[in-house]
Amino acid sequence: MRPSGRTAEQIRPIKITRHYTKHAEGSVLIEFGDTKVLCNATIEEGVPRFLKGQNQGWITAEYGMLPRATNTRTQREAAKGKQTGRTMEIQRLIARSLRAAVDLSQLGEFTITVDCDVIQADGGTRTASISGACVALYDALTQMVKKGLLKTNPFKGFIAAISVGIVNEQAVCDLEYIEDSNAETDMNVIMTDDGKIIEIQGTAEGEPFSHEELLTLLALAKDGISTIIKHQKIALNITS
Amino acid sequence: MRPSGRTAEQIRPIKITRHYTKHAEGSVLIEFGDTKVLCNATIEEGVPRFLKGQNQGWITAEYGMLPRATNTRTQREAAKGKQTGRTMEIQRLIARSLRAAVDLSQLGEFTITVDCDVIQADGGTRTASISGACVALYDALTQMVKKGLLKTNPFKGFIAAISVGIVNEQAVCDLEYIEDSNAETDMNVIMTDDGKIIEIQGTAEGEPFSHEELLTLLALAKDGISTIIKHQKIALNITS
Amino acid sequence: MRPSGRTAEQIRPIKITRHYTKHAEGSVLIEFGDTKVLCNATIEEGVPRFLKGQNQGWITAEYGMLPRATNTRTQREAAKGKQTGRTMEIQRLIARSLRAAVDLSQLGEFTITVDCDVIQADGGTRTASISGACVALYDALTQMVKKGLLKTNPFKGFIAAISVGIVNEQAVCDLEYIEDSNAETDMNVIMTDDGKIIEIQGTAEGEPFSHEELLTLLALAKDGISTIIKHQKIALNITS
Amino acid sequence: MRPSGRTAEQIRPIKITRHYTKHAEGSVLIEFGDTKVLCNATIEEGVPRFLKGQNQGWITAEYGMLPRATNTRTQREAAKGKQTGRTMEIQRLIARSLRAAVDLSQLGEFTITVDCDVIQADGGTRTASISGACVALYDALTQMVKKGLLKTNPFKGFIAAISVGIVNEQAVCDLEYIEDSNAETDMNVIMTDDGKIIEIQGTAEGEPFSHEELLTLLALAKDGISTIIKHQKIALNITS
Amino acid sequence: MRPSGRTAEQIRPIKITRHYTKHAEGSVLIEFGDTKVLCNATIEEGVPRFLKGQNQGWITAEYGMLPRATNTRTQREAAKGKQTGRTMEIQRLIARSLRAAVDLSQLGEFTITVDCDVIQADGGTRTASISGACVALYDALTQMVKKGLLKTNPFKGFIAAISVGIVNEQAVCDLEYIEDSNAETDMNVIMTDDGKIIEIQGTAEGEPFSHEELLTLLALAKDGISTIIKHQKIALNITS
Amino acid sequence: MRPSGRTAEQIRPIKITRHYTKHAEGSVLIEFGDTKVLCNATIEEGVPRFLKGQNQGWITAEYGMLPRATNTRTQREAAKGKQTGRTMEIQRLIARSLRAAVDLSQLGEFTITVDCDVIQADGGTRTASISGACVALYDALTQMVKKGLLKTNPFKGFIAAISVGIVNEQAVCDLEYIEDSNAETDMNVIMTDDGKIIEIQGTAEGEPFSHEELLTLLALAKDGISTIIKHQKIALNITS
Repeated sequence: MRPSGRTAEQIRPIKITRHYTKHAEGSVLIEFGDTKVLCNATIEEGVPRFLKGQNQGWITAEYGMLPRATNTRTQREAAKGKQTGRTMEIQRLIARSLRAAVDLSQLGEFTITVDCDVIQADGGTRTASISGACVALYDALTQMVKKGLLKTNPFKGFIAAISVGIVNEQAVCDLEYIEDSNAETDMNVIMTDDGKIIEIQGTAEGEPFSHEELLTLLALAKDGISTIIKHQKIALNITS
Repeated sequence: MRPSGRTAEQIRPIKITRHYTKHAEGSVLIEFGDTKVLCNATIEEGVPRFLKGQNQGWITAEYGMLPRATNTRTQREAAKGKQTGRTMEIQRLIARSLRAAVDLSQLGEFTITVDCDVIQADGGTRTASISGACVALYDALTQMVKKGLLKTNPFKGFIAAISVGIVNEQAVCDLEYIEDSNAETDMNVIMTDDGKIIEIQGTAEGEPFSHEELLTLLALAKDGISTIIKHQKIALNITS
Repeated sequence: MRPSGRTAEQIRPIKITRHYTKHAEGSVLIEFGDTKVLCNATIEEGVPRFLKGQNQGWITAEYGMLPRATNTRTQREAAKGKQTGRTMEIQRLIARSLRAAVDLSQLGEFTITVDCDVIQADGGTRTASISGACVALYDALTQMVKKGLLKTNPFKGFIAAISVGIVNEQAVCDLEYIEDSNAETDMNVIMTDDGKIIEIQGTAEGEPFSHEELLTLLALAKDGISTIIKHQKIALNITS
Repeated sequence: MRPSGRTAEQIRPIKITRHYTKHAEGSVLIEFGDTKVLCNATIEEGVPRFLKGQNQGWITAEYGMLPRATNTRTQREAAKGKQTGRTMEIQRLIARSLRAAVDLSQLGEFTITVDCDVIQADGGTRTASISGACVALYDALTQMVKKGLLKTNPFKGFIAAISVGIVNEQAVCDLEYIEDSNAETDMNVIMTDDGKIIEIQGTAEGEPFSHEELLTLLALAKDGISTIIKHQKIALNITS
Repeated sequence: MRPSGRTAEQIRPIKITRHYTKHAEGSVLIEFGDTKVLCNATIEEGVPRFLKGQNQGWITAEYGMLPRATNTRTQREAAKGKQTGRTMEIQRLIARSLRAAVDLSQLGEFTITVDCDVIQADGGTRTASISGACVALYDALTQMVKKGLLKTNPFKGFIAAISVGIVNEQAVCDLEYIEDSNAETDMNVIMTDDGKIIEIQGTAEGEPFSHEELLTLLALAKDGISTIIKHQKIALNITS
Repeated sequence: MRPSGRTAEQIRPIKITRHYTKHAEGSVLIEFGDTKVLCNATIEEGVPRFLKGQNQGWITAEYGMLPRATNTRTQREAAKGKQTGRTMEIQRLIARSLRAAVDLSQLGEFTITVDCDVIQADGGTRTASISGACVALYDALTQMVKKGLLKTNPFKGFIAAISVGIVNEQAVCDLEYIEDSNAETDMNVIMTDDGKIIEIQGTAEGEPFSHEELLTLLALAKDGISTIIKHQKIALNITS
């Protein structure tokens, strides 16, 4: 029995609120149970130096946690004067995943930055970030087409992310914090709508895991991601 | 006529949501119109080194803006590796103001940190921060008494803050961003329930202002603050 | 009775030494009693990026304290790797005040930086800085006209700053360190020659202060500033 | 045909030189073809604060590249004043992997730090680092037992790492730089001697990859890792 | 002919003002012609960690230049967030030299920090710093004896520093800025009263210099230092 | 008797390995006994801003030590976020020395950066760095001529560096770590092939040293440097 009473394959209630703030070109509050992340997409002209003149766009991401998003207060990174390794790792992951959802060669010389800021954390902040950021990105791209900045929408398809893991020797989907901190194996999977893999990161926190366990976790992830993508489409009023 | 159609002395609609996040000992989302600030109060044992052994507590504050809280994206301070002078100035102001609301000698050797994070900015983020932080602080102190950490509540009285200024030669109260960026004079006032002054910071952005203008602005501020404190009490179900 | 034997409204002896160092375009050592600040104005071509092409100039300021300007040694900010919030707050205040003394649209695309370095501190370093910086700025502007960099002098009028406060329930002017550290209320005022207000920053260190106390303090400040401006003019051989 | 003439499943020549420097408790130069990494293990008394008094040890790792380990010079991180996200990500991965090879509860209150410094880079620096670090760690632990610091050796078993990927639509093992920079999918796998997974990190650089491709890559990785562990044992004169 | 009309061996006018500021235990303004450095010695209890429990004291130094001490403004190190290599090099040199003047084993567990801040620069700021710092140190040590912190004065003897160099093929003593920036060889020498060498740092800026030139420069330095030490003693009213 | 059994004037065995890594334009591993430094020269187009348009080149250097190059582990500068004063001092010395070996006016608008990274330290890392860097620089310059980037080779002549010092009252050459840490006087000398001095840095760690001692040390240095330059030429197959 899981702490929340969920079955092994059950993900937490998902809520996606678009237009959460008024300034960003895409602004989404995503909730995976008690995990709440605000994903704001910003469109800016120009690309980083290493892409100049290549006639393509760029997508990047930044991640942060409000100091008291967590159970005990975490030191503010701005006050400390640097981002932790964990933060950098997560924002690099978000950015890579989002770039897989877009045809950068059709984006023009624009940069889209998606800021994922965790308002409240209860496990799975990076997977919620990616899943919410994809919707914010979609809104931003749609707006670019509407404004005439782009002729065609370079969005290639929805992506979403979920955490899976082995807790008390049982493979479970969408771990909340109490599960996450006790997991023997912890894996984050990012997939497309049709079950292809964009990123897989699995870590044995305790004992190494077997090939069979990997397969079980992947199957759980695939189902969970499929459900999240349904929620993304509903939030965007897309029927397909 | 003000952009929002308000009269000169009218403040924006105020909304105070308590228990906005689940981890913090005090968690308040305060809205002054489109300005939205999340104020989380954290209780921690111990005091800063310079206060050790003096048998008193401490209250401090940190301030931040989400990168896309503003109309165009602001660089993330954590990524830049330092807080701006503006941020430091604001968080010092918030902390000083909150300390004026509490009898630190009755707080025991505890430190309360109030994090004010701007989710959406439309002028007056520092005054909204102070006004919201006071409620979060109140909740945290009440909880300390309930938990038996303190015998008596060291809260001395409500404080609130408002911005006033001269815009187009007219003295107005609670400036929104478009007014703020065009103000000739900009003043932030923090007061107690009975109209005493905790802090006053007035700046002539354009021409110097006269003694009479200062008095007019102070009168506007006093009324605005009185209204905010009423909202604080309603949110806390205090009738007095 | 004040520690120095001064009356409540009496400011400390003021000494302004121009051409204190040989390199700066304006170089002033200002002394408010035992507080000594060296104010050096530097003229440089060009303006910050946000002003480029707007056909106006810029005035900025930096503030520092020698490590042993104070009674006990303060850590050197350059060694620590960052400026404190207090330093940033003060240098922003100095710069804002100086900009109020000059018509930036008549300054051409030049930047004047005024460095205020505290050689010895005994309270009121920020007000001495502003008052001395104004003279250094005047010298620099005069030199620009002489050198033909400017056709007309964009100086609009003298400004000066003073601290006032309530110490032992008495309102006093130009606090020295021992008073400052015991003040219930501490206020810094920057005014023009004709008593208009450029900046007012008042803080209740202990109890909040009343409207009447504010008025008393402002009156003290006005007189003190008037005296300082007389000294500025004498130092510059201006009779008006 | 691969650039080096290798078959798809063939790893590069591996060379492991122990006692490469004289000071470290374990010092290994590992070469995967032209990729050369120096792995130095340092034993120090004490554990990080979060582990104090828990009667267990800790293993951590740091990673660096000499500025001209790469084809064009990379800015020195020490001069830049911070480590890149890539560096932090890699050193966190190395450390996690090494901790999986040791029973920390049997390590006593010691910390072992393994420094992995890339002397020459040609792809696969993180996998070479992990594979070499494991040998340096083994030497350090053996020395601790010899010196009487530990009664039993807490080493649980060998681990090694390899990169696999899809290049020109072909799954290949142990990518060199030219392959790595053209890979559609890039995956790093860390396994134990008996083929259990410690860490898997797969990224679609171009198109998402299928479940079948994942399985193919995993099989390649398993074989490659098995070969590396044979080399580790030969270098250590272990016959099993 | 030198720019100042001095002969090759002639040093600039030296002026040593003690008790220049009121807070420091030793406070000396030293002037070598137009080079002016304020040297403040601070006594603090305790020693750095690496000396704890060794029953000896420590002497350290910090060096800084006011931004406009120079002909064109130099960026403030505190604002830049780090000290330059030049600054670090100089303050390490000052500290090493001062430690040679004191028997640290007789200093008790005290640390003396000498801050050398350049008010105005015209060449030779490091040699003026050392020469002035020695006097400030002497005053601080004398005060320690007077206050009963030390039983005997651990001062071993005066030291002073001078720059010598080859300018226009001529060996000269105590270079001012215009000479320094054109020197083919530049050498700083620190010596004791009896002509023994504490530190010698010679650099060929242009062509390498010969053994004979080195000897000539050393002889010039010896005479210059002897004169400076006379000034130190006069300032301290020491007749010997 | 010296720890290694060497005579006073004897330097340690020298080994110079060229083409140590494959990417750098010059790559030399130099060994002075157990001190091993990797010197990599990188050619890049362009010069620092202060040299732009002056039709000359620039040579710079960076220095680092692997954390476990030393007997006990030193904190990684990249992790600490800044280079120590010692590191900065050394890399400035290396760069100055190398510039003395090259006619910068004949280098074109190129910058050569020589990275000196200490793999293993046993005293004399800065002198080994300079001596090895000179060979790497030579290789890089030769390659520039071969590639047609330069018409004539701007190399002016070999330079090398050695440490000398007074240990147990005896003047010795090329100190290893155990000697260095006990030296009363420590001196680094950089000379040309014909015995001219490029740089001399002597420090009395304990008692000041006499003029005669200086001369003895210089004579030792001259012989040692002459031997090193012979090794440089042999490594480069130069007969002269």
